[in-house]
Amino acid sequence: MADMGFVGLGVMGGPMAMHLHNAGNRVTVWNRTPGKAEVHRAAGISVAESLAELAARCSAVCLCVNRTEDVRECLAGLVPSAKPGTLFIDHSTISPVGAKEIAEELSAKGMRFVDAPITGGSMGAKNGTLTIFCGGNEADVAEVLEIVKPYAKTAERVGPSGSGQQMKLANQMAVGGALLALCECLSFANKAGLDLTQTHRMIGGGAGGSWAFENYGPKVLAEDWTPGFSVKNQRKDFGYCREAAKAIDAAIPGTELVDSLLAELDAEGHSEWTTAALYTVLARAHARG
Amino acid sequence: MADMGFVGLGVMGGPMAMHLHNAGNRVTVWNRTPGKAEVHRAAGISVAESLAELAARCSAVCLCVNRTEDVRECLAGLVPSAKPGTLFIDHSTISPVGAKEIAEELSAKGMRFVDAPITGGSMGAKNGTLTIFCGGNEADVAEVLEIVKPYAKTAERVGPSGSGQQMKLANQMAVGGALLALCECLSFANKAGLDLTQTHRMIGGGAGGSWAFENYGPKVLAEDWTPGFSVKNQRKDFGYCREAAKAIDAAIPGTELVDSLLAELDAEGHSEWTTAALYTVLARAHARG
Repeated sequence: MADMGFVGLGVMGGPMAMHLHNAGNRVTVWNRTPGKAEVHRAAGISVAESLAELAARCSAVCLCVNRTEDVRECLAGLVPSAKPGTLFIDHSTISPVGAKEIAEELSAKGMRFVDAPITGGSMGAKNGTLTIFCGGNEADVAEVLEIVKPYAKTAERVGPSGSGQQMKLANQMAVGGALLALCECLSFANKAGLDLTQTHRMIGGGAGGSWAFENYGPKVLAEDWTPGFSVKNQRKDFGYCREAAKAIDAAIPGTELVDSLLAELDAEGHSEWTTAALYTVLARAHARG
Repeated sequence: MADMGFVGLGVMGGPMAMHLHNAGNRVTVWNRTPGKAEVHRAAGISVAESLAELAARCSAVCLCVNRTEDVRECLAGLVPSAKPGTLFIDHSTISPVGAKEIAEELSAKGMRFVDAPITGGSMGAKNGTLTIFCGGNEADVAEVLEIVKPYAKTAERVGPSGSGQQMKLANQMAVGGALLALCECLSFANKAGLDLTQTHRMIGGGAGGSWAFENYGPKVLAEDWTPGFSVKNQRKDFGYCREAAKAIDAAIPGTELVDSLLAELDAEGHSEWTTAALYTVLARAHARG
């Protein structure tokens, strides 16, 4: 039973904060759009009026927001009121270099920061079965691993500050490539006159199978482009992938390709579609070469 | 119990012919390199001296060779001696257009031809758990589905002549994309200083997971480039993918990318390495852009 704060009650953060509460913690939440906290208030969770108020109450604060600059902005509101040694746990997917810098800056102010990006999607958040990649020093991460238990299936320390973000980006590369494989396979099959349901079933059950086949495949078959994980958020992560790859001289041509294909959806105003809509880009495209 | 012929006793065909024999068929085999038939001879299977001799004995003949021209060459040796109505079952991965043309040519000679390419790898052949994509008319394919039972986990008619090859090429696109996703994820992780075994386990267990992660991942971790499925054979299939995609105006940029990366291994004399060696190309490459 701890005094926990949770900042960012979106599709992921909302259910995660609820899990913390249900596990018996005293939870205080804050969200930029206050309306999203009403479901938490109704469940008996404290809703802070400001980040300062939240920070003053808590010994550990989870963040689940969007970009590096959003994390920085929230911390700017939290840190001045935070108790010495407060543990900040960042579940957002941000720049690894940014995460490392933030950890160093907070350390200089007597605070602690662990990057702890998550994967597993909205169902994973709802069901408490997320995978969490933790970067930070061993003692801090050990505390984090206890705290996140109510919503993690797998949580591990993967290295020092920034490592959690690095592994999350590696994860997005694997997800993006598998998505491309699915969409390219099905769009070719469609043009070849094959039955898509049969193609999906037969190929997905063999050496071409993947989580993407199982989970995004049905969206493609139904041509249902409601999120899911949006093109916009996927491209945000790919931006960090490109930046991080450049910094360590890593080649990520597949990720760059997927990003360029999703950029077409973005340009057409479909940034809120689910990433499986990559299928539509390939389906209409003309063969190159 | 039928008089079955099997032509092509390679890594795939060898165990498949054995399964036919073990299921109680009278099997006659032929292989270009006669030595590969010795294990079959020792098991009590007839080894024909020539394709003509094999064809004269059998009511159905399976082929498991390499390229379109190899199938044509074998058929040129088989057909003149074959009984009217002989059913040729082609397990090779060849051009869909080629398969359709061969089916039409054989039909004009009173023979039957079903394209029935396989997936599931050498373990699938050994364990009798292959997936088989069958293209041909309904009656012929119905016969094929009975014949291949001893080595198939899944076998289905997917459409008219050539369709089996089309779905096999779609399958290779899915396999190739998943391979790229795996290799890109792990080569980035390696350069980022992450532990590769942990990365593989954590990411493979989530939304980035795939058959490729499970089966090629351990090869990458061990840097074991023994086949497996060779770069050479993968590129042979990708050549058919490119040709087939062009013919139907399908975009396959991911497959083209994987092919271009594997071409580097080919150029360096590593065409017999397993496809997971794609990792080495990414690992050494410099970031683009």
